[in-house]
Amino acid sequence: MMLSLDRLIEQALLEDIHTGDITTQAVVPGLRPASARLIAKEALVLAGLFVAQRVFLRINPEVVFNACFAEGALVEKGAVLATVQGNASDLLMAERVSLNLLQRMCGIATLTSRYVQAVSGTKARIVDTRKTTPGLREVEKYAVRVGGGINHRTGLYDGVLIKENHIAASGGIAEAISRARAYIPHTLRIEIETETPQQVEEALAAGADIIMLDNMDCETMQHCVGMINGRALVEASGGVNLDTVRAIAETGVDIISIGALTHSPRAMDISMLLD
Amino acid sequence: MMLSLDRLIEQALLEDIHTGDITTQAVVPGLRPASARLIAKEALVLAGLFVAQRVFLRINPEVVFNACFAEGALVEKGAVLATVQGNASDLLMAERVSLNLLQRMCGIATLTSRYVQAVSGTKARIVDTRKTTPGLREVEKYAVRVGGGINHRTGLYDGVLIKENHIAASGGIAEAISRARAYIPHTLRIEIETETPQQVEEALAAGADIIMLDNMDCETMQHCVGMINGRALVEASGGVNLDTVRAIAETGVDIISIGALTHSPRAMDISMLLD
Amino acid sequence: MMLSLDRLIEQALLEDIHTGDITTQAVVPGLRPASARLIAKEALVLAGLFVAQRVFLRINPEVVFNACFAEGALVEKGAVLATVQGNASDLLMAERVSLNLLQRMCGIATLTSRYVQAVSGTKARIVDTRKTTPGLREVEKYAVRVGGGINHRTGLYDGVLIKENHIAASGGIAEAISRARAYIPHTLRIEIETETPQQVEEALAAGADIIMLDNMDCETMQHCVGMINGRALVEASGGVNLDTVRAIAETGVDIISIGALTHSPRAMDISMLLD
Amino acid sequence: MMLSLDRLIEQALLEDIHTGDITTQAVVPGLRPASARLIAKEALVLAGLFVAQRVFLRINPEVVFNACFAEGALVEKGAVLATVQGNASDLLMAERVSLNLLQRMCGIATLTSRYVQAVSGTKARIVDTRKTTPGLREVEKYAVRVGGGINHRTGLYDGVLIKENHIAASGGIAEAISRARAYIPHTLRIEIETETPQQVEEALAAGADIIMLDNMDCETMQHCVGMINGRALVEASGGVNLDTVRAIAETGVDIISIGALTHSPRAMDISMLLD
Amino acid sequence: MMLSLDRLIEQALLEDIHTGDITTQAVVPGLRPASARLIAKEALVLAGLFVAQRVFLRINPEVVFNACFAEGALVEKGAVLATVQGNASDLLMAERVSLNLLQRMCGIATLTSRYVQAVSGTKARIVDTRKTTPGLREVEKYAVRVGGGINHRTGLYDGVLIKENHIAASGGIAEAISRARAYIPHTLRIEIETETPQQVEEALAAGADIIMLDNMDCETMQHCVGMINGRALVEASGGVNLDTVRAIAETGVDIISIGALTHSPRAMDISMLLD
Amino acid sequence: MMLSLDRLIEQALLEDIHTGDITTQAVVPGLRPASARLIAKEALVLAGLFVAQRVFLRINPEVVFNACFAEGALVEKGAVLATVQGNASDLLMAERVSLNLLQRMCGIATLTSRYVQAVSGTKARIVDTRKTTPGLREVEKYAVRVGGGINHRTGLYDGVLIKENHIAASGGIAEAISRARAYIPHTLRIEIETETPQQVEEALAAGADIIMLDNMDCETMQHCVGMINGRALVEASGGVNLDTVRAIAETGVDIISIGALTHSPRAMDISMLLD
Repeated sequence: MMLSLDRLIEQALLEDIHTGDITTQAVVPGLRPASARLIAKEALVLAGLFVAQRVFLRINPEVVFNACFAEGALVEKGAVLATVQGNASDLLMAERVSLNLLQRMCGIATLTSRYVQAVSGTKARIVDTRKTTPGLREVEKYAVRVGGGINHRTGLYDGVLIKENHIAASGGIAEAISRARAYIPHTLRIEIETETPQQVEEALAAGADIIMLDNMDCETMQHCVGMINGRALVEASGGVNLDTVRAIAETGVDIISIGALTHSPRAMDISMLLD
Repeated sequence: MMLSLDRLIEQALLEDIHTGDITTQAVVPGLRPASARLIAKEALVLAGLFVAQRVFLRINPEVVFNACFAEGALVEKGAVLATVQGNASDLLMAERVSLNLLQRMCGIATLTSRYVQAVSGTKARIVDTRKTTPGLREVEKYAVRVGGGINHRTGLYDGVLIKENHIAASGGIAEAISRARAYIPHTLRIEIETETPQQVEEALAAGADIIMLDNMDCETMQHCVGMINGRALVEASGGVNLDTVRAIAETGVDIISIGALTHSPRAMDISMLLD
Repeated sequence: MMLSLDRLIEQALLEDIHTGDITTQAVVPGLRPASARLIAKEALVLAGLFVAQRVFLRINPEVVFNACFAEGALVEKGAVLATVQGNASDLLMAERVSLNLLQRMCGIATLTSRYVQAVSGTKARIVDTRKTTPGLREVEKYAVRVGGGINHRTGLYDGVLIKENHIAASGGIAEAISRARAYIPHTLRIEIETETPQQVEEALAAGADIIMLDNMDCETMQHCVGMINGRALVEASGGVNLDTVRAIAETGVDIISIGALTHSPRAMDISMLLD
Repeated sequence: MMLSLDRLIEQALLEDIHTGDITTQAVVPGLRPASARLIAKEALVLAGLFVAQRVFLRINPEVVFNACFAEGALVEKGAVLATVQGNASDLLMAERVSLNLLQRMCGIATLTSRYVQAVSGTKARIVDTRKTTPGLREVEKYAVRVGGGINHRTGLYDGVLIKENHIAASGGIAEAISRARAYIPHTLRIEIETETPQQVEEALAAGADIIMLDNMDCETMQHCVGMINGRALVEASGGVNLDTVRAIAETGVDIISIGALTHSPRAMDISMLLD
Repeated sequence: MMLSLDRLIEQALLEDIHTGDITTQAVVPGLRPASARLIAKEALVLAGLFVAQRVFLRINPEVVFNACFAEGALVEKGAVLATVQGNASDLLMAERVSLNLLQRMCGIATLTSRYVQAVSGTKARIVDTRKTTPGLREVEKYAVRVGGGINHRTGLYDGVLIKENHIAASGGIAEAISRARAYIPHTLRIEIETETPQQVEEALAAGADIIMLDNMDCETMQHCVGMINGRALVEASGGVNLDTVRAIAETGVDIISIGALTHSPRAMDISMLLD
Repeated sequence: MMLSLDRLIEQALLEDIHTGDITTQAVVPGLRPASARLIAKEALVLAGLFVAQRVFLRINPEVVFNACFAEGALVEKGAVLATVQGNASDLLMAERVSLNLLQRMCGIATLTSRYVQAVSGTKARIVDTRKTTPGLREVEKYAVRVGGGINHRTGLYDGVLIKENHIAASGGIAEAISRARAYIPHTLRIEIETETPQQVEEALAAGADIIMLDNMDCETMQHCVGMINGRALVEASGGVNLDTVRAIAETGVDIISIGALTHSPRAMDISMLLD
């Protein structure tokens, strides 16, 4: 992960600083030691503190960054997440990019953990989707894991998910699954999207490894879970929110996938304060 | 913008597709014509449809993409935003990246437009901040403009904003402004952050072009606006939300900056449906 | 695949041409129409002709390239694989890079097809490994498919293969499989490497989806296949060559993985002749 | 070489690891010290051990890599090429890319050294061609040097080689050489490809610095070497293999170029074993 | 600046060294300690010594580079600018790229300082333009600052300059300024190009922040400065050289912009001598 | 050349435009057809017009660019070099980058042609050096050719030039040449730098192909040319300017290399005027 993370950080810094931080260059003397604290302005699940750290070190490897909590920690409002020492100008230049990443990652981990808590005691796993921010998929999926979720496939290249459109384009469920089985690496399972119990039946008959129940109501889901009866993994998808997730989990599905984890988290409020 | 946009799109497609869409390769025959519609599943302010289009064309320049609305249009739930024709496999490969960008951009434009409406009739401009998603600043700031907002500086390199920390590090407001004036291009104004009426006074005396009132209550802001009396532009910052923005605007400030426009918009719900 | 293929081609052309083809610039007049043929100097399984084409088009989109065979065709010695028309200088500049890719890809497809034929009538699939040429994994794995093979995982990121070292580092087979199951996407199966029937037993008990039999003799493999009895997929690995592959396949394994397909193919002899 | 080598290594690691080594992440605890040996499973000429080292250091600069032999050493089967200490997870992530490069480079050096030995005692130099693997030209040409060979031009940009097609396109040997002489840097010699003694004569008369004898039988070559009589360097090309190379060298040619050195070496068998 | 500087340096080194310094590889033993001096062969204003240093360190971080003067120093002919210790081969490889950058940057700083001296005692600031060398804008604008000049906008993205063509295309001065005011960030001023006193009048009326007097004679300029009378900043542009700049400054303009600072400086003569 | 040229142009455009041309976006309506002329404001030798064209086409492939002269043409003051049609905004965005490249390239070609004329009638070739602008070596060396000069080696990788420091580091002229001969491709000649007639003697004895006479006066050069007497090519270097070049050429040297061609040309004055 570190190789691609370093590219992301370099790109983000170039986006913000580009030809230089003119305010700091104009106003702050070149070498002026300073220390600062990263402070949680609200309770949150911590994710990405090592990413924040790496941003500071990319600006200047001599910055000293001390993390005060481990990844995944449940942090109270007001807590000092980390302390940073270095040139004032280096800290000021790194601040915004560092926080932009950290605030988003904490937002995702915090939101994920709420879903995970909501289904606690059931066997359902909370998983993410491909509805991530372009360029940030890797760090966003990491934040889901930190929040207690599990990742779905990373992209189109590392998992098979036969959707409605694929079924239509290939002549039916049986045909689609059969083609996929012949083509894909043996290391991958085949998942297929279904919208009705009848499709579930077809999928089972065709040997699907995973059956997604798409936008079904809880009653129908429960019925399908019963039909499947352990012969395939079952994923619920569509219409999931914090109000509905518990009921969905209680239908007995194995996996609940939620796009909002990564497409609409609220950024956590985190500030850097110079001492 | 197009040069950097094309890089963003290529990167986003590589992130999602990487070595190939194995499901589509396995299941969908190579050349199978299809048509699809992009549909708004909720009312929204449209932003980024040309970006969505460019994603499809990057996959295959022969895809035909017809936009049904202009940027900035207020679109009803259920509306068809665009129609797309091409190989089924090309449409399926472009879908997610295209929507991920479009949903986020519409989310920002829609949220911005709500703030703009909330202050309508006042002279206050709604502006964004540097609290953007790493890698997406350009498209996010574009979406703010589409929503009726105005951009603040793009990054550290194209605007001067002397914050509390800069003031401390340079020995005071007068000194900081004087140093900045000597250093920066004559094409830039100098903005300075203040937290008290006394600092506003100092900033005025030192010749600040723009004075930011940071986290002040409305009464204090109104007092400061009176003190400044047109001798500098006035920007309100901190604690702005849809409940407070109108009152802030009515203090007479020129500019209201809002980080949430870009760090925490809710992605609009948009789907691609194959016909 | 096209996005990354285009990057590979651009990089390969820059490697060969760099600041310019000085011979051609010096000797050949700028615009001189020419036609050429790509000729197989030995019998081969054709793979990568569209890659060769794309090289010519990258030099000049106006080059006309006509493929004479489909991918996967078994081509006789002396056959014309394609005809090319364009400026003489463009053809000369594209020639070497185009052939370097094509010759290697045909080499891989041809070698793979020999293994596939050798096991014909058994249920064994011939698959590749990660022993590919750095930078060429995608085109090499494509060539394996063209030759009738199937791909193993693409890299470390899209498949789980627990090797001896992983087992040692995690405290045993059961522990390793259990950790993997909790961590990985539900779309992936778990493969584990075993060296003895006892390890096979442990792997089965721990719920492995795929069991690799590493460097076992045929008798032991056959014994293990019997033990497993369909409860997991079975992959044979190690010591596979054209003399041994049939016997290995007849042990009843599902998959035979062969590093030599991509690390040591002989490049097929293909020339470009100007008419 | 190091600048471009580092790019190659980064690209190769990204190709293999991409978003992460999921097996190792799932199964191996984060910090677990380990040591390993790189072992030659067959006799070989060592080339690229510093490249292998650089791969490990790119993953983690704290890995300790001790080379046991110098580049070019003739190593026996079973020899330990290097020892490596570091986190188990770092060693496991670097292993495949490191070996993929090393096995290929040793394959080239070993093959080259066999050709060099075959012509020992003659004045002939064994040289490579542009038939290299796209992206690896620099390391492959390095491996040829380690094996005792000498490099031909690197690409189209740093040497002049007038081939049959160039001659045809420019109106004859004399014209082609004259044009080249007027155009190229004075630091370069002019080489021209000939297929008959008569063409050799023309090339000599036109002042060629180097004359390539393309696909001639040994008798004709010997005749041409006599004609040239030291007035130009002589390169033999085409139909060279380990059975024919000695006889070709004994014709008195100065240089023998062999595409197979780089397009079809067999990868040497090298393993990494954790202790 | 360092992030983009490092990219520039890497690119410049790859341009010069590419696959290797064959002379040094052939002739100089691998590890041979050496020391060298960078010597000014003529008097100059020093700019870019830290850039020169960074080139050496990019080749080998163990090179020891001691700067003998600070940036901006007025250095006599014959002065030692810096001493360098390291492997002979590393010093030889870095030399040319290092000097190419340093000589150009010193050339710009030296030329700029002559202009600055020529206007000393007036209030005029000497500023640069966008007539910079592609790829070097950042280091060239830095060198202008070192020479005592001030930067104009960096590019099209961080400043507003409404030229004749913009005026024509938008229907007049008032319209153009009004549109710009509504669109641009509040942190930017609006500059407009004028060619006659009447246009100056219009620009003032429309509220321009900065008025450029383009290619006017000194008398007209003086007249315009009087008209403007402090209501806008005044920039003189066009026909500026060392013979005319003093008279222009004495018209009372605030800013004098000079393209030649960056498009036609003479490179200063600086050598590296090995001891 | 086109592949690397396109990268240079993209980089140059991103440097200038970055996130957008805010003036044009604010002031000029999106689609407004315009035509413009590129005009030579002084007499010049034309070089790089196709580069200028490619800049416009990179902004928008629909721009129509008509070149009025061929590369190398001697153009009078006031001449229209090219006409351009397209959207006003596209022309305005491309203008500066296009001219920055064109003005520099014409400057180099014009300066080179003056040196070439100065030595006309002698056998001396005017050649460039590695004292080029970082990032622009390829286009600058092209401009030298357009001006009638010939290129020296492109970089450290495609030519051998043994300098004083190399000689010292390798134990003498004979040793250095011998080592180089054994190492380098047979396609390259060996050039060596000499400072005295005695060194010339040594170089000849060692079999140097090219002898550089470094910073010698004309009398000494003439003496050395006589000593060499055609047994090696002779290059004069150092202290060459338009006043001295004729006398140097008349000493009988084959090549005169001049750093100033590329490190200190004056940019030619060229404007774009919208009709």
